[in-house]
Amino acid sequence: MERVILKQSNVQTDPLPAWNEGPSKESILGFVEAVTTEGGAEFVPPLDRIAVFDNDGTLWSEKPFYFQLAFALDRVKALAAQHPEWQEQQPFKAVLEDDISGVLAGGLKAIVDILVATHGGNTSGEFTQIVRDWIARARHPRTGRLYTEMVYQPMLELLDYLRTNGFRTYIVSGGGIEFMRAWVEDVYGIPPEQVIGSSIETRFELREGGPVLVRIPQVDFVDDNEGKPVGIHKFIGRRPILAFGNSDGDHQMLQWTAAGDGPRFMGLVHHTDAEREWAYDRDSLVGRLDKALDEARAKGWTVVDMKREWRVVYPWESE
Amino acid sequence: MERVILKQSNVQTDPLPAWNEGPSKESILGFVEAVTTEGGAEFVPPLDRIAVFDNDGTLWSEKPFYFQLAFALDRVKALAAQHPEWQEQQPFKAVLEDDISGVLAGGLKAIVDILVATHGGNTSGEFTQIVRDWIARARHPRTGRLYTEMVYQPMLELLDYLRTNGFRTYIVSGGGIEFMRAWVEDVYGIPPEQVIGSSIETRFELREGGPVLVRIPQVDFVDDNEGKPVGIHKFIGRRPILAFGNSDGDHQMLQWTAAGDGPRFMGLVHHTDAEREWAYDRDSLVGRLDKALDEARAKGWTVVDMKREWRVVYPWESE
Repeated sequence: MERVILKQSNVQTDPLPAWNEGPSKESILGFVEAVTTEGGAEFVPPLDRIAVFDNDGTLWSEKPFYFQLAFALDRVKALAAQHPEWQEQQPFKAVLEDDISGVLAGGLKAIVDILVATHGGNTSGEFTQIVRDWIARARHPRTGRLYTEMVYQPMLELLDYLRTNGFRTYIVSGGGIEFMRAWVEDVYGIPPEQVIGSSIETRFELREGGPVLVRIPQVDFVDDNEGKPVGIHKFIGRRPILAFGNSDGDHQMLQWTAAGDGPRFMGLVHHTDAEREWAYDRDSLVGRLDKALDEARAKGWTVVDMKREWRVVYPWESE
Repeated sequence: MERVILKQSNVQTDPLPAWNEGPSKESILGFVEAVTTEGGAEFVPPLDRIAVFDNDGTLWSEKPFYFQLAFALDRVKALAAQHPEWQEQQPFKAVLEDDISGVLAGGLKAIVDILVATHGGNTSGEFTQIVRDWIARARHPRTGRLYTEMVYQPMLELLDYLRTNGFRTYIVSGGGIEFMRAWVEDVYGIPPEQVIGSSIETRFELREGGPVLVRIPQVDFVDDNEGKPVGIHKFIGRRPILAFGNSDGDHQMLQWTAAGDGPRFMGLVHHTDAEREWAYDRDSLVGRLDKALDEARAKGWTVVDMKREWRVVYPWESE
């Protein structure tokens, strides 16, 4: 402990080396300094330093489609032998024929059908193990990297920097809560109780081997759009002072954060880098950023220009 | 801080002075010592030191009926002018006529109807203020005390003792999550994000004055019986190593806790003191303790005999 303090006070260490100097880095550093300066006008006690982050497109990539959907498609194939009816039933038929555009043509309903069918029917312990096995070996179709390598180095640094300054960092994602909890502690340093996400129903059962929680293929909670402030309020019960997202699905979470008293930080990752990552906003089906971008511009929220402001996107670039 | 350490190392301070020497105190002290002894066979890292407590009948009294129901009955009266139909409609008619046995005759359905009707229709901020106003002045019909005075001194000490030893203490109660969050931080030192309870639906609304969360009179989640392990898994995502309850409503939470690997502590407050508190178990409508008591006896869980093992019940007894 002493050594760390010594280092920080003697050398001006940059806590965010993957961020280029620019308006976003400046606004982050300024905000954290303001809320942590004891006796300052904007000081916030540590218990109230709640920071919430979307996951898909904010902490890791989300193209060509949500990584959890890739997991679900693999699960359809793994479970197909137990579901002969899927050979003729959409959207499962399209999945089994590797017809991704056929799947996506079914819209949100097709995706929900796939998620629900592949995420239920086992116990919470079994499901966690299935996710861990998958995420340890599945590879992204374009980069060939593990999905857990496709996280944003600048955001990893930001999470660390906030925690060093007494913040508690939460994930608030449309993704599945148990899907994320299986790996985010290792990858982001965020413990399960600080992960909020969408869920299916679970049911307690007393079996011969002991009690289990059985995952029921039925939607419990959708933690997206209006669901995000609802989830924040339900799980945390206090309003965050910092929120970071990247799409209109995060709009209400940003509005809810902005509406509190005292200092506030609202941030958006703007995907502007077609070369190192992807470039998309208003017209994208996955991760559409339109209304939230307008409000961010109007209100002076921080909009991170990925291309200009991130020196590094993925951790492996420093290899 | 230094002074506290000095005191603890020089003097053998009793961390649980309201507990008489006896099997329960011994089992608590032994468990905490075992899981906090570094290098010991039963050591548990701090992140996994999760302790869950029921509220009604475990941290505060629950007789003659749940205190939250007293709040709801008062709310029926406060809202009656806006609901002329209640004059003729049960169970509201009985409430307005102060006919408590008439209310209770309607069973669980009557109580749920009252809770739902009185807990919705406002924003989360308004509701919190209503609870705070009520709990600051409402008095218990028998003792004339504030409800927040009717908490158990031995359990306050236990909560403190566990936190001093690196535990995080959670409430897992059938009571309303927002009802509890309005006051438990002050009374038990438990922050909102560590309170799990029953809930009604909430909906995000963007109003002219800013975004609000509106409480919808519709049940969202019942955190009782089988709901307790479901709630624990949803909110915390890890299994507790210590659980304390007092009724069959806590049975599944205790079973879920007991089924984990490594050292475990399962405790029940047994209401055996008709003089200082109440004496009830197998035949009580409120807080029935029957099946969980049988399993506790069979498995050697800790059953606290309130009459013999608690030197003090309520904090005011030391006045």
